[in-house]
Amino acid sequence: MQLTDEQCRVRFAGARVARLATVAGDGSPRLVPITFVVAGALAAGDIAGTKEAVAGDVVFSAVDHKPKSTTALARLRRIEHEPRVSLLADDYSEDWTRLWWVRADAHAEVLTTGPDRKSGASLLEEKYEQYRSQPPQHAVIRFVVDRWSGWAAGNAV
Amino acid sequence: MQLTDEQCRVRFAGARVARLATVAGDGSPRLVPITFVVAGALAAGDIAGTKEAVAGDVVFSAVDHKPKSTTALARLRRIEHEPRVSLLADDYSEDWTRLWWVRADAHAEVLTTGPDRKSGASLLEEKYEQYRSQPPQHAVIRFVVDRWSGWAAGNAV
Repeated sequence: MQLTDEQCRVRFAGARVARLATVAGDGSPRLVPITFVVAGALAAGDIAGTKEAVAGDVVFSAVDHKPKSTTALARLRRIEHEPRVSLLADDYSEDWTRLWWVRADAHAEVLTTGPDRKSGASLLEEKYEQYRSQPPQHAVIRFVVDRWSGWAAGNAV
Repeated sequence: MQLTDEQCRVRFAGARVARLATVAGDGSPRLVPITFVVAGALAAGDIAGTKEAVAGDVVFSAVDHKPKSTTALARLRRIEHEPRVSLLADDYSEDWTRLWWVRADAHAEVLTTGPDRKSGASLLEEKYEQYRSQPPQHAVIRFVVDRWSGWAAGNAV
């Protein structure tokens, strides 16, 4: 069954890992797992219950502790080139009546300095105690969610 | 640390779920979780230890039991339009020294009939007992892996 936007948001926010799909300069997709935090709606979309509020959900993710790595740099370059990305959280179970997934199609932006980067990093530290001993030092990616979609097998909701 | 092609293949093949990134007609990425099976090297690449053997790994996935659903149909349409896809298997743990992921950049092809479709469906039934009571009835997607890449935190190998 299809999930509502609110069900999508709750399940996605509760997940500990998501996967980020970006598009390379040659038009082929790339995938990487990310830690992330859902920061709630943008101020601009802060009208509870409206479509705008839903569309304004913001997600933050940090680039790992090896920012010089080819993988991390390539990810940032791809986002600069094509900001449209897709994020996915899912839960696998051998009981296929419990399967679900939630996708967030979003626009991504790389924040290297400034208060927004700092807010994103702080929210990540709140969610993951692992970041408290080793805070995100480098770029933070901000995703503005354009569309939620999700599905759960019948018994999962 | 980077994983070798062989380490990538072993970890990926052992995973129960992967994520498939495709590219839509408008150039934006899409993501969905899939069940899959690694079928080993193509006959054409069957020269043990050569680059060709590695490049020839084949992965199969079945479209779910609701082939008329918009999601499933859109996935097949995207593959017809852009066969280059990316597959990711990863294992999340709260112990971040145990994290790993493996990515397979691949070309996808939709098989709706024929012996190759049947072989793929049989391999899926071997891997997943869930398919034995309800075999894949519809299209099977065949992925030919162009490149493996993978990473594991220091303590994970």
